[in-house]
Amino acid sequence: MNQYEEVKAEILAIGDELLYGQVLDTNSHWISQELDLIGVRVVRRTTVGDSREAILTAFAEAENRADIILMTGGLGPTNDDLTKPLLAEYFNCAIELVPEALDAVRTFFEKRGRELTPLNALQAHLPTKCTYIPNVLGTAPGMWFSENGKIWMSMPGVPHEMKKLMTDHVLPRIKERFQLPIIYHYVVKTVGIGESWLADLIKDWEGNLPPHIKLAYLPSLGQVRLRLTAFGDNPSELEKDVALQVEKVMPIIEKYVYGFGMMTLEEAVGKMLREKNQKVAFAESCSGGYISHLVTSIAGSSDYFQGGIIPYHNHFKNRLLGVDASTLEEHGAVSEPTVIQMAEHVRDMFNADYGLASSGIAGPGGGWAEKPVGTVWIACATKTKTVTKKLQLTQDRMLNIQLTGVSVLNLLRICILGKTE
Amino acid sequence: MNQYEEVKAEILAIGDELLYGQVLDTNSHWISQELDLIGVRVVRRTTVGDSREAILTAFAEAENRADIILMTGGLGPTNDDLTKPLLAEYFNCAIELVPEALDAVRTFFEKRGRELTPLNALQAHLPTKCTYIPNVLGTAPGMWFSENGKIWMSMPGVPHEMKKLMTDHVLPRIKERFQLPIIYHYVVKTVGIGESWLADLIKDWEGNLPPHIKLAYLPSLGQVRLRLTAFGDNPSELEKDVALQVEKVMPIIEKYVYGFGMMTLEEAVGKMLREKNQKVAFAESCSGGYISHLVTSIAGSSDYFQGGIIPYHNHFKNRLLGVDASTLEEHGAVSEPTVIQMAEHVRDMFNADYGLASSGIAGPGGGWAEKPVGTVWIACATKTKTVTKKLQLTQDRMLNIQLTGVSVLNLLRICILGKTE
Repeated sequence: MNQYEEVKAEILAIGDELLYGQVLDTNSHWISQELDLIGVRVVRRTTVGDSREAILTAFAEAENRADIILMTGGLGPTNDDLTKPLLAEYFNCAIELVPEALDAVRTFFEKRGRELTPLNALQAHLPTKCTYIPNVLGTAPGMWFSENGKIWMSMPGVPHEMKKLMTDHVLPRIKERFQLPIIYHYVVKTVGIGESWLADLIKDWEGNLPPHIKLAYLPSLGQVRLRLTAFGDNPSELEKDVALQVEKVMPIIEKYVYGFGMMTLEEAVGKMLREKNQKVAFAESCSGGYISHLVTSIAGSSDYFQGGIIPYHNHFKNRLLGVDASTLEEHGAVSEPTVIQMAEHVRDMFNADYGLASSGIAGPGGGWAEKPVGTVWIACATKTKTVTKKLQLTQDRMLNIQLTGVSVLNLLRICILGKTE
Repeated sequence: MNQYEEVKAEILAIGDELLYGQVLDTNSHWISQELDLIGVRVVRRTTVGDSREAILTAFAEAENRADIILMTGGLGPTNDDLTKPLLAEYFNCAIELVPEALDAVRTFFEKRGRELTPLNALQAHLPTKCTYIPNVLGTAPGMWFSENGKIWMSMPGVPHEMKKLMTDHVLPRIKERFQLPIIYHYVVKTVGIGESWLADLIKDWEGNLPPHIKLAYLPSLGQVRLRLTAFGDNPSELEKDVALQVEKVMPIIEKYVYGFGMMTLEEAVGKMLREKNQKVAFAESCSGGYISHLVTSIAGSSDYFQGGIIPYHNHFKNRLLGVDASTLEEHGAVSEPTVIQMAEHVRDMFNADYGLASSGIAGPGGGWAEKPVGTVWIACATKTKTVTKKLQLTQDRMLNIQLTGVSVLNLLRICILGKTE
C-alpha cells in the first residue's frame, strides 16, 4: 500500500458492569463499524473493570499495539469511575477546571430546568494534557490526547452520547490526522439457507477467488452473510474486483439473497413494498408485536406498514380478527386453518396487499406431544392466494420469537417476488 | 478469603466479524453473567480477529492473567476459522478424528433429513489433548483443555449452541474443579430518575457503606441500576450485610424502585398485574409493537396481556380504534385528546383493566416547529381515570421507540400502584 498508512486501533471498554455482565457493550460494536468504514483496522477490543491496575495495564498494552486507542466508560460523576484520574496519572499531568467545560455542564442542567450539583461540576475538571471535546448530550466531556505518538480518546459509556462525540469530533479528527489505507468490504445477505449448505453450494467459486479478496461466512439467526474483503491501493479497482466476484456467485445463490451491505431483512422487504407501492399488515400471536416492531424500526415504514393486531388471547382472534370459533375449537389456535384466516382477515382489516400471521407455542410452557414448544404456523395472504408454512423451532422463547420474525419476513419477501413455488 | 480460591477468568471472542462490527458480541456478555453468578471473577474480555498471530498472542496473554480461558468463535467448517488448528499448535498436539464426534455430527444431519457433507465431517477432527464436549444444537463440538495448570474451553460462536454447552457442561465442570470464593451482588433497579440526581439523593447513605460493600451506578435508557457488591467468606453474612444497607436506602428511593436483581421493568409490571389478577392492552402508534414485544418476551405473559393494536396509519386510529375523526383533525394524531381516546378504547376492545397508548413523532422525518421529532404523548386508562404524559425525547428513531417503551411501562407501574397523585 503506497501512500496510505496502516492505522491500527484498539477499543477499550471500561467498567465492572461490563465484566460482571450487567451491561451489554454495544459501544465497542458500533465503534468497530465506524472505524471499519473509514479504513482504520481494529486489531483488538478489550474490556477491563474499574480497577487501577487493570486499567493502567490495558493503557500500556494498547499503546504497544495500536495507533489509536478509543475508550468508553468510567467517566461518571460517581466514585467508582476511574478513567479520568488514571489518564492524568498515565500521562503524568494535573487535573484542572476547564471554564468552557463548566459552562457547558451548567447550560446542560439549565436547559433541563435543574441546578448544577457540586458532583456534576466535577465533570468540568480535566487532565491538563487533553483537548476538551464537548458532549452536548450529557455531562461527561470527551478527552482527546495526542501523547507518545498515539491518539487517545476517552468518551462516556452512554451510547448516544458516545455516538454523537464520535460522529461530530472523533471520526473527522482521525480522517484529518491519518492517510488511511483502502480496505473494501462488500456483504451479501442471505436468508433461508444454513452456513454449511451455502459453503457447499459456492465452494468452487470460493476456491477461485483472487488472493487479494478474502471471504467470510457470518451466520446469525436464520441468516448467513457472506463478506468479501479486498485489500489494495485503488478504491475503484477494489470495488470493480469485488463486483466481478459477486456477479459470478449471484446466479448460484440468487434465491437466498435479499440484500447487500448493512441492509436488514426488514429494510429489504420495506424497499420492495415501496417500489411496488404495496402495503402490509400483521396479525401477530406468538410473535407478540416483534415483527411490527422490526418493520417500524425502519424510518419511513409508514409508507408501506398499515398497522397490525396482536390477538394474544384466542378470544380476540375470534372477536376482533374474525377467526371462526369453530376453526379455533376444531383445529386449535396453532394450526394452518387459523393462521390462514388470521392472515386473510388482517389483510382486509387494514386494506393491505399482504396480510401476514403467526401463531405458535413460543414456550417454555404450553406445549404437548402433538404440538411441542417451538411449533409455529405462519401465513401470508395476498389478493389471489394464501401461503402457509409450519416451523419447528427451539425450546427457547426469545429465539422462537426471533426466528418466527425472520421466517415471516422471508415469507413476505417470497410472496412479493411471486416465487411461492 | 479462607478456604476459597480466587478464580480469575478471561473471555476470548474470536472473529474478524466482531472486530469489523458485523456481528454484535452478546456471547461475552452472557458468559460474564454466568461466571459472576458462580463467583468466578472475570478480569478481562478480549476480542481478536481471524489472524494467527493475534490469536496466539491472546492465548499467551490470557494464560498469564487467568485460571480459566473461555473462547467463542472461529470454529466453523469454513476456511476462515482458525481456533481449532491454533489450539492444537499452542498445545503442541495433532488433530485426529474422534469417532464419537463423527457420530454426533452425522446424527445431527440425519435428524434434519440431510446428508453429512465432507466439509461438516471435518468438525469431528479434534486436537488430541482436548476432551470432546458434545454440542447437541450444532455441528462444531466443544473442546475442553486442562493444560499448563489452566482450564481452556473453546465453544462455537452461535449463541444458543454456546449457552447450551456452558449450562450443561462448562459451568458444572468449573464448579467441580474449583473451590469458588464468595462475591455477593445485589442490584436495585430504578426508573424515572437520572444517575446524578439519584447519587445526590443517596450520597449520605453511600458515604456510610461498610468497606466490604462497594456501590456502582449502572445507567441505561431511562433507568439506573444500583449494584451493591459484597466480598467475604460467609454467604449468609454477606447477604445479611447487604440486606441491611438496602433496607436503609429504600425509604429514600422507594418511588423509583421497581425491582431487584435481574428483574426487568416488563417483568416487574407483569408480576404486579398477575398478583392483582389484572389485564393490560396496548394501542401502539409510534412505538409500533415494541411495548407488546417487551411484554410478550416474558414467559407466562398470556396471564395478563390481552393483546394490542398498532393503528399505524391515522385512518385506522379512527376506523379500528374509534378515535373521533374530529379529534384527529383538530388536535392531530400526536396529541393528548388522541392518546386519551386510544387508551380508553383499547382498554374496552380487549376487556382490560389498563389500556395504554403511545402516539408520537419517532423521526427522523415528520417533525415541525410545534411538534418536533421526539414529541410523544402517552396515556394510561383505568376504569376510573385516564392519566397522560408528554415526552420530549431525542432525534434518534430507535432511541425514541425504546424510551417510549420505558415511559409507558413506568406509567403503567405508577397506575397499578395507584400513585398518580
